[in-house]
Amino acid sequence: MSQQKQLVELQQRANHLLDNLVSSRPNTAPYLKKAINYSLTQGGKRLRPLLTYATCAGLNGSLENADPAAMAIECIHTYSLIHDDLPAMDDDALRRGQPTCHIAFDEATAILAGDALQALAFEALSTNDWYPDCVLPPSTKLKQIQILAQASGMNGMVAGQSIDLSSVGKQLSLEQLENMHHCKTGALIKASIQLGALASNQVEESAWQQLGRFADAVGLAFQIQDDILDIESDTETLGKTQGADIANDKPTYPAIMGLSQAKQKAQQLTDEALAILAPLGQAAAPLKQLALLIIQRNH
Amino acid sequence: MSQQKQLVELQQRANHLLDNLVSSRPNTAPYLKKAINYSLTQGGKRLRPLLTYATCAGLNGSLENADPAAMAIECIHTYSLIHDDLPAMDDDALRRGQPTCHIAFDEATAILAGDALQALAFEALSTNDWYPDCVLPPSTKLKQIQILAQASGMNGMVAGQSIDLSSVGKQLSLEQLENMHHCKTGALIKASIQLGALASNQVEESAWQQLGRFADAVGLAFQIQDDILDIESDTETLGKTQGADIANDKPTYPAIMGLSQAKQKAQQLTDEALAILAPLGQAAAPLKQLALLIIQRNH
Repeated sequence: MSQQKQLVELQQRANHLLDNLVSSRPNTAPYLKKAINYSLTQGGKRLRPLLTYATCAGLNGSLENADPAAMAIECIHTYSLIHDDLPAMDDDALRRGQPTCHIAFDEATAILAGDALQALAFEALSTNDWYPDCVLPPSTKLKQIQILAQASGMNGMVAGQSIDLSSVGKQLSLEQLENMHHCKTGALIKASIQLGALASNQVEESAWQQLGRFADAVGLAFQIQDDILDIESDTETLGKTQGADIANDKPTYPAIMGLSQAKQKAQQLTDEALAILAPLGQAAAPLKQLALLIIQRNH
Repeated sequence: MSQQKQLVELQQRANHLLDNLVSSRPNTAPYLKKAINYSLTQGGKRLRPLLTYATCAGLNGSLENADPAAMAIECIHTYSLIHDDLPAMDDDALRRGQPTCHIAFDEATAILAGDALQALAFEALSTNDWYPDCVLPPSTKLKQIQILAQASGMNGMVAGQSIDLSSVGKQLSLEQLENMHHCKTGALIKASIQLGALASNQVEESAWQQLGRFADAVGLAFQIQDDILDIESDTETLGKTQGADIANDKPTYPAIMGLSQAKQKAQQLTDEALAILAPLGQAAAPLKQLALLIIQRNH
């Protein structure tokens, strides 16, 4: 099977499970449920669950063991998008080509939908009978939960968003910018890969270290590419408002180092990431393809 | 030791650990950290961690095994208060006798502080070396995480808040009101007790069932008393705005069944709760005292 086709199949797997994740829950608060489902199931590239699956597969693990982690990661990512788009934050009206959650529903419901998605992530990782074919030992699931909680909290993703908001209109050094992105997007991308490695149930210490370095390089390349697309792409292709960073006076890589230097750095990080994967051989082909996709994507 | 003194000691234990929980974390985003600490450490009755500790003690468990659960429960409770107080929700300026988080800091930071506290709850439950004296098996910790995630998510606490918001100005039946409160406050109170029971590491099926019934009765009594206090107490004693339910046109027990009937029902639920505890004997004395406190509290 071609690498491209493998990725499409993994994406379909993620989308299928995401479709079921919310719709199979009880209708306790129907409007809230609708808002959660709206944000979780309307497209998105599913890069993070793909990283989880591809890492697990790259270490010869079974995809069934990676399902809860793939779901949890996408729940956390989606909640962060809903909250980042709120009027008190980035105040954005468009996401994944559709009205943002607080526009399609209302602000209170958007806050609650994000809150519920965060809880759902940890419920998916801890509820054995949602994914009965996942047979990881409890200690491994606990480690996945710890890594995800740490990556998404006050020293990870949420910290990154807080630094981002407090940086508006400020001149950041390259080091400060990297630290911000390391938290804001890098931590969750790294967690996607680490949860996938744990799901393989056979990751050795040396591979764990290598994958950590791969994750750091991919995470940073991802963010630089994001900054470049904010300048070079258009709103329709992006599915979110083009030029939002500049309009919001946010520090970006192209602003600090210039556009062509930023492109060079993204390419360099991707080369670095691919070199790290080389020892993993053919099993890592989908992961390699993903790293390339991240740098070559146009949205 | 008197029951009163036992509860004070448990409260001090909770407060001491809460003081350390955030301050011992790295300073990744200092303003965010300050906001989290502000909301988590400025008072509060600590009823939920007390329920966790007292339940664990009531089953002759060690308090060390209950520490992570007590912390996690209070993190979830505090995050829910921060988000409930936001302008898009209840728009409240006063909490625990102090300005609410979005008043003391800003709205974006309050949203992020709540988000980070939810992640912190699951990090506390899954990070073994934060509480090295907690020696519960991974499968028990995983069960605690599952119960907490379920109780706080789209079929628990967050659902309750969503139903609450959509009920403003509406006439609810008693059954609808009970369902709302069962989600909004009852689910987390029940989780506090269940996590404490699991922390004892020796809960039998019959005790588990009894404690579930106890939790349902206490949770409902707690909410009815909350509604009564909103009418009968004053802002200074409550530490939050008195009369807020009426001002927000929210359905309450006194509004539906009358004040004296509501008082009677709260007393009846408390009697029921105490009767359930009787077979647990002397070890359950602090839990009994807590149930009484919940109904006799004036704030």
